[in-house]
Amino acid sequence: MIKNSETKFWLLYEREREKIEKRLSSLFENREPSSLYKPGAYILKGGGKRIRPLLVLLSTKAVGGKLSKVYNAAIAVELLHNFTLVHDDIMDNADKRRGKPTLHKKYNMDTAILSGDGLLSIAYETLLKDCNGNAKLILSEFTQGLIEVCEGQSLDNEYESLQNVSIEKYILMIEKKTAALAELCCKLGAILGGGNKSEINALAKFGKYLGIAFQIQDDLLDIAGNENEFGKFVGGDLVEGKKTYLYLKAISKAKGEDKKKLMLITKNKGIHRNRIEFYKGLYFRLGVIDDARNEIKKYSGRALKQLRFIKQKEDREILGWLINTLVERSR
Amino acid sequence: MIKNSETKFWLLYEREREKIEKRLSSLFENREPSSLYKPGAYILKGGGKRIRPLLVLLSTKAVGGKLSKVYNAAIAVELLHNFTLVHDDIMDNADKRRGKPTLHKKYNMDTAILSGDGLLSIAYETLLKDCNGNAKLILSEFTQGLIEVCEGQSLDNEYESLQNVSIEKYILMIEKKTAALAELCCKLGAILGGGNKSEINALAKFGKYLGIAFQIQDDLLDIAGNENEFGKFVGGDLVEGKKTYLYLKAISKAKGEDKKKLMLITKNKGIHRNRIEFYKGLYFRLGVIDDARNEIKKYSGRALKQLRFIKQKEDREILGWLINTLVERSR
Repeated sequence: MIKNSETKFWLLYEREREKIEKRLSSLFENREPSSLYKPGAYILKGGGKRIRPLLVLLSTKAVGGKLSKVYNAAIAVELLHNFTLVHDDIMDNADKRRGKPTLHKKYNMDTAILSGDGLLSIAYETLLKDCNGNAKLILSEFTQGLIEVCEGQSLDNEYESLQNVSIEKYILMIEKKTAALAELCCKLGAILGGGNKSEINALAKFGKYLGIAFQIQDDLLDIAGNENEFGKFVGGDLVEGKKTYLYLKAISKAKGEDKKKLMLITKNKGIHRNRIEFYKGLYFRLGVIDDARNEIKKYSGRALKQLRFIKQKEDREILGWLINTLVERSR
Repeated sequence: MIKNSETKFWLLYEREREKIEKRLSSLFENREPSSLYKPGAYILKGGGKRIRPLLVLLSTKAVGGKLSKVYNAAIAVELLHNFTLVHDDIMDNADKRRGKPTLHKKYNMDTAILSGDGLLSIAYETLLKDCNGNAKLILSEFTQGLIEVCEGQSLDNEYESLQNVSIEKYILMIEKKTAALAELCCKLGAILGGGNKSEINALAKFGKYLGIAFQIQDDLLDIAGNENEFGKFVGGDLVEGKKTYLYLKAISKAKGEDKKKLMLITKNKGIHRNRIEFYKGLYFRLGVIDDARNEIKKYSGRALKQLRFIKQKEDREILGWLINTLVERSR
């Protein structure tokens, strides 16, 4: 891809992102009671890459649809995403998100539960504005996406208490927890943009594989990320004893002493920060950093393959650029 | 109303309720992961009057529609209701519901948050089965109902920390928290049953007024209920320091010492059980028991008035029977 088009894509992304931000920031402006909507506005103001709305927009564009007709759908998926963040942060007992206090820390748990529910209900309300004539299909897809996200989060909680989880199960979990939403975004954009069956199917798969690659990249960054660019300290998943792709791959490859050391991480529900370097070294020695990189390549490759169903070269290029940017990201 | 038709109505209710129970109990049977759906099945098994599904069914019948076409909608409103119960019980820190441990006590808080989300997502999935052709309207109404319930719960939480709340604000809160869902049930039943505009409008109002009467009756039962029939001890709202209709009415009427004593309830966030009799006496002395009874009559009267828009005598009678049964209930 030539440099020129890359600049063009960044500019497109920034322009659309700004529009999304504007819509998100005015969404709760005149809504009452403020006890419900102010916390909702707080989490929406927290930033984020707004990748999900972008996937809706780019999928609409890729099937020749009009962007102006899908902004509500784009907002709806971001609301759904933020609903999951608010509730997940309670479950993870997370103090911070994107450097700011999580909603339940800023307010309290009751407010966080209810604001999460509120975000989801407004997601449906917003989506309904964009699906004239297609409501049954659009709402069904959205609801299936929501169900998968709930199931994925539930599996994630389940796996937390298990000593061992196979890589296959882990991939199934992130398919539901992370990839289902990316798949939904692309599917909604393609349907609302008037795509044909093979376009819708291809974009849905593109979103799904992108979502899996994105999540493994997330796991990888926790270990191999550059601390300054990453924005949080390296090794956080180890400290919290999370079962990431790297951890599960490591434990499946390790033997003897190495395996025992790895098992200590989950047994003790995390490690001390001064042990991060040791485990990072172990991960490198076991080759799981490379394994993760290969897995990311595998899934992003599968995603890119789907783009053959997209008619315009520019649309194939921009979706290709997006996935490359995401899997090469440093934070 | 003659005794004969009353028996007939009870039999109809029991028959429909059984169908609803059966559908509810099989709803999550083959769904995975069990960590998400078993807790959901647990709360659905907890019983309850299933008034909301009944409202859907009776509203469909009242406009001449077929019951067989609205069972999914009837299940959906019960799922929505149970979603609110699960999340509200966390916020109220309630230990028991209908004599059994609440979901977050039986399992844990994370599971309760997520199972609540799951119940809501399955509500949408189930509703979508019953709205061929009408999806946009049906889903919009359902979503508006959900939003109102969230707003009502948020107002309820807000009012908890206020020293004083006007009766008007209290009614607005229960309109959203309780009555909006009853209104939704009747509206969905009427729309799906093919009712005309005035029938839909009348049944929606019927549901709303019934919901308000139902909630004030709930507040009244806490004080004036018969302990044996009520199933829980009388005065629980006083012990928890809840701002009920009776409390707010009492504080608006009381003067001097009485007012000071009433203010202690919220100041101390509840009273000791041995003080219940005193406050019960005060409520009687201030006349708020009668005020509540009159308010219930006012709203059930408004509900009954709407029934003039219903064509068949039997349908008017059965809805009349339902509201009378509810506002004369002892638990």
